[in-house]
Amino acid sequence: MTSPAGTPFGARLATAIEQRGRFCVGIDPHAALLREWGLDDDVASLERFALTVVEAVAPVVGVVKPQSAFYERFGSRGVAVLERVVAESRAAGALVLMDAKRGDIGSTSEAYADAYLDPTSPLASDAVTASPYLGFGSLDPMLEACRRHGGGLFVLALTSNEEGPEVQHARTPHGTVAGTVLAHLRRANADATPVGSFGAVVGATIGRTDEDLDVNGPLLVPGYGAQGGTAEDLERILGAAARWALPSSSREVLRAGPDPAALRDAALRGNDAVRGLGA
Amino acid sequence: MTSPAGTPFGARLATAIEQRGRFCVGIDPHAALLREWGLDDDVASLERFALTVVEAVAPVVGVVKPQSAFYERFGSRGVAVLERVVAESRAAGALVLMDAKRGDIGSTSEAYADAYLDPTSPLASDAVTASPYLGFGSLDPMLEACRRHGGGLFVLALTSNEEGPEVQHARTPHGTVAGTVLAHLRRANADATPVGSFGAVVGATIGRTDEDLDVNGPLLVPGYGAQGGTAEDLERILGAAARWALPSSSREVLRAGPDPAALRDAALRGNDAVRGLGA
Repeated sequence: MTSPAGTPFGARLATAIEQRGRFCVGIDPHAALLREWGLDDDVASLERFALTVVEAVAPVVGVVKPQSAFYERFGSRGVAVLERVVAESRAAGALVLMDAKRGDIGSTSEAYADAYLDPTSPLASDAVTASPYLGFGSLDPMLEACRRHGGGLFVLALTSNEEGPEVQHARTPHGTVAGTVLAHLRRANADATPVGSFGAVVGATIGRTDEDLDVNGPLLVPGYGAQGGTAEDLERILGAAARWALPSSSREVLRAGPDPAALRDAALRGNDAVRGLGA
Repeated sequence: MTSPAGTPFGARLATAIEQRGRFCVGIDPHAALLREWGLDDDVASLERFALTVVEAVAPVVGVVKPQSAFYERFGSRGVAVLERVVAESRAAGALVLMDAKRGDIGSTSEAYADAYLDPTSPLASDAVTASPYLGFGSLDPMLEACRRHGGGLFVLALTSNEEGPEVQHARTPHGTVAGTVLAHLRRANADATPVGSFGAVVGATIGRTDEDLDVNGPLLVPGYGAQGGTAEDLERILGAAARWALPSSSREVLRAGPDPAALRDAALRGNDAVRGLGA
């Protein structure tokens, strides 16, 4: 990326979208995919899988999203592979969105900010996903770290899994839980141009929603493709907010491997399919 | 512990409480505590701090609770220290409750179950904390892993940080979000004796609550001591559910270090103060 260090994440993301596209490739080496690639379920295979994907797609897509859980399965040695995924993806010019869904309070929330947003950390990423069950304000240390270091945060808001509504649709004095998260994000992004650094995680197949998804920030939309969402669905569901949507897919790209050219082609096809979103 | 492998976590916990006590020591090497101990903020100091605590307290208390965030700060090398904390604490006879507050859906939720509850994982713990923002049902793979391996799960329910109520007190058709989480836990623990394996995380200073905290499962109560909760507060707030409460404290014990005898004394004092809870 050509943006200098210290530039807000929102601005860096806007550049990445313009130069490369908005498609976000999930680097999710789960056991079933390792098998599909003819690999064993061990840390050497994890490394081979993950770095093959990085080498194939990180030079061409705007954003990659490693799912931490699949590396944590192998303990510290898996996390060492995750460090390489992060470093090598960034070196290849992709933004790294660490999908970790962390969330805690006080000094623990600060420690997660240190782990994923401080440039001196071995796991330093461009952005990280977070969970607001302890209240949006509990994530403040992570927002502050983003402001300090030019990082981004994507907070779970309105997901499309069937179990989500029990929490996310619950009513607060000001609307729903999801709406409250979105309102916090909108405030955090106030006055940011071209777009804020604080995004929401929104499901690709939530169907019609009454929530205002326009938070002047990016929307991470996982489950694009694999779980049935199409570019047209996204336009319809997200409305004006589609402009800063990052449709994310892992399986749809990763099952094209292990051939690097096939992986890259799958990523470029995914990228092309959502290029005009929100235009 | 004398319980055989494969025994449900609830039964193993009951034995641990009977033989050692209910006090849970948080092993939280945060930057400020490292400083207080005269250590640097680096991975060698992390290791020295954490293993000093393990050696001093794991042979005497029933449960230790490492906070993953403070190890993740140092990337894979920090996670390697966490592996030693887990293994050496279990070898010393303490149950290990991994405080990671993980939560995701589908195959990712399964991967977190693999990471923290599968006995073959380098981070295999006796129990793990989880976050239900994606709906309690999204944690099903973790509950299933607990049933398979004799593990425990502690799900965030009703915490005492000031930002929590915006989500946890939100209204569902059946009560509040926190109440819904508690109801799910109660169902998961139905018919378990002497106590179920599925616990709730409940704040030590939530004040009066209308929620029914008796889920026939353990209650992890962090912030005991440091954040102002006393044994009397716990009796009053938790009612009958105090019987299976695990009051947890880190700073109150850890600041007694680095002297091992002082650490152990502080842990034993904490343990004694809550021994009669719910009797």
